[in-house]
Amino acid sequence: MCFLKGATVGYDTVNNKAVFVDQTLLPSQYREVSTDDYTEMFEAVKTLKVRGAPAIGVFAGICTAVLINKIETDDYYILISKLERICADFVQCRPTAVNLKWALEKMLDGGRKSTPQNLKKNLKTLALKMIEDDISVCRKIGEYGAELLADKNAILTHCNAGRLAAVKYGTALAPVYIAQEQGHSIKVYADETRPLLQGARLTAFELVNAGIDTTLICDNTASAVMAKGLVDAVLVGCDRVAKNGDAANKIGTSAVAISAKHYGIPFYVCMPFSTFDFSLNDGSQIIIEERAAEEVTDFWYKERMAPEGVHALNFAFDVTSSSLITAFITEKGIIKPTEIKNYI
Amino acid sequence: MCFLKGATVGYDTVNNKAVFVDQTLLPSQYREVSTDDYTEMFEAVKTLKVRGAPAIGVFAGICTAVLINKIETDDYYILISKLERICADFVQCRPTAVNLKWALEKMLDGGRKSTPQNLKKNLKTLALKMIEDDISVCRKIGEYGAELLADKNAILTHCNAGRLAAVKYGTALAPVYIAQEQGHSIKVYADETRPLLQGARLTAFELVNAGIDTTLICDNTASAVMAKGLVDAVLVGCDRVAKNGDAANKIGTSAVAISAKHYGIPFYVCMPFSTFDFSLNDGSQIIIEERAAEEVTDFWYKERMAPEGVHALNFAFDVTSSSLITAFITEKGIIKPTEIKNYI
Repeated sequence: MCFLKGATVGYDTVNNKAVFVDQTLLPSQYREVSTDDYTEMFEAVKTLKVRGAPAIGVFAGICTAVLINKIETDDYYILISKLERICADFVQCRPTAVNLKWALEKMLDGGRKSTPQNLKKNLKTLALKMIEDDISVCRKIGEYGAELLADKNAILTHCNAGRLAAVKYGTALAPVYIAQEQGHSIKVYADETRPLLQGARLTAFELVNAGIDTTLICDNTASAVMAKGLVDAVLVGCDRVAKNGDAANKIGTSAVAISAKHYGIPFYVCMPFSTFDFSLNDGSQIIIEERAAEEVTDFWYKERMAPEGVHALNFAFDVTSSSLITAFITEKGIIKPTEIKNYI
Repeated sequence: MCFLKGATVGYDTVNNKAVFVDQTLLPSQYREVSTDDYTEMFEAVKTLKVRGAPAIGVFAGICTAVLINKIETDDYYILISKLERICADFVQCRPTAVNLKWALEKMLDGGRKSTPQNLKKNLKTLALKMIEDDISVCRKIGEYGAELLADKNAILTHCNAGRLAAVKYGTALAPVYIAQEQGHSIKVYADETRPLLQGARLTAFELVNAGIDTTLICDNTASAVMAKGLVDAVLVGCDRVAKNGDAANKIGTSAVAISAKHYGIPFYVCMPFSTFDFSLNDGSQIIIEERAAEEVTDFWYKERMAPEGVHALNFAFDVTSSSLITAFITEKGIIKPTEIKNYI
């Protein structure tokens, strides 16, 4: 059994349920949801109840195992064709993060390599391993990152790439948590991250709960905070990196990177190595999810906050040019954009 | 008599009232308020019912005239000492924009130069002239700016420096309105401008009402919109410019300027010439208003949107380095940062 125990997603193997913290209710309510229902799982990812690139990958793995284990047959062809359909549907849920595709391909591959006898068990084992791997990968990212932060007092982060975006530790915030374990307190400036306020609702929530000194700012204030010399480094997560180092992450990341370069502040992208997508030459090939305009015009203000008749653009991500990235912090170590080619 | 007639602030000389559109109610409600009450006037500026650098300057002028004309004495010393007290109090209301100081100094100077017999009348005349001057200054800014935009299809703007920020036309949006008069439609990308959403509530409101094609974006999306080649120029207003060209404007302006430079897009600051404050050497000497943290953590979301325990920084303005500014568009013409010295 693998309940949440403070993690963001989990696998209740006793009851064969996928478990997740509903992040749309944070910070006012902390609710764990257990489900073996495909529509509920799919909606959880689509509506960002489960979000964050590593977390949605692991969650998709857990959901696949739960759904296949739920089927009351051991007919291999029925199970495999169901597995293929689940993976084909699920992968379209959120197009930008590579992790969803990566996890579903792992499950599909695992299923195809299984015998009729061990398919269900193998998928369960794979999903549990994904959980464990995510924890150890993020811990490694945290350890490498903490070394880089040894002489630093404050970082700035955008969106949420903390423990709520992975199983535990997170990516961009892992170095802060590991530094804290090592007795080094790092102050965090958190961009609120419009339109869905992942910074205000999630990053601030998890950091304050962890006892870390956290200052929330509007996204447009990052430049002023940097200009005042308050920030020693920028750490962000990542959804997909092309071969040339162009990195897709939450909308606004490129603006933070451009400002960091302007002020001479190092800009680090923290992510599992699997976030590299070597099938893409550059960032222009990364599909950018576009979400509903109402998230900009209506969502967080109970009355409509913009007039009727106005258009709204709502890219959920943007691409940061590799020229703006100091290094990628991965479980394999710290990789400069020019060094990516050594890993292909 | 000078009622609003579609303007943002006005002087009802028949009833001796200052008139303003309450901008905190927009876009859902358009309400004109008439007042001769000092506390109500002061609160209107403090709580941003009247906002926008040129508008608060003119409004302060009108309020001063109304308050002095309301006093039932012609005793010169009583009137002058009252005038001095009003100006000393009012100037502290909002520290960043130079216009408030400029307008109050004009009124004070006008009062001191008056005879006991014509003091009240002079202040009234001065206030009415401020209204007329603001309209003609903004129209000039619009005409110079429209020339610059002759070959351009789309601009991006931050905050609201439109007609709601001045008496009529506005500063940053004046070129768009004048271009429209001349038959040239310019598309506008409007940053929503957290925390108070002047872009979403005010810029989008006035542009959509004027029939201008307007797209609202979250502040963090400006970089992505520029990267896609959707923006030909950035036009913003301004609160105060130091001798070296460093310009204070709404928080986030510096980030937009840094991004514009990164993408090779011209960045124009539109403002009355009186926005130059030659008493300051550079931007570090400009006082930056800091407003309540609750505007970031609570204000637009009816439930608290960030957890208890988080700090929040809420600079209302930031300073854009003159190195990022293509030119200032003023009623005296288009002035590059290196040319400011010719005007001192």
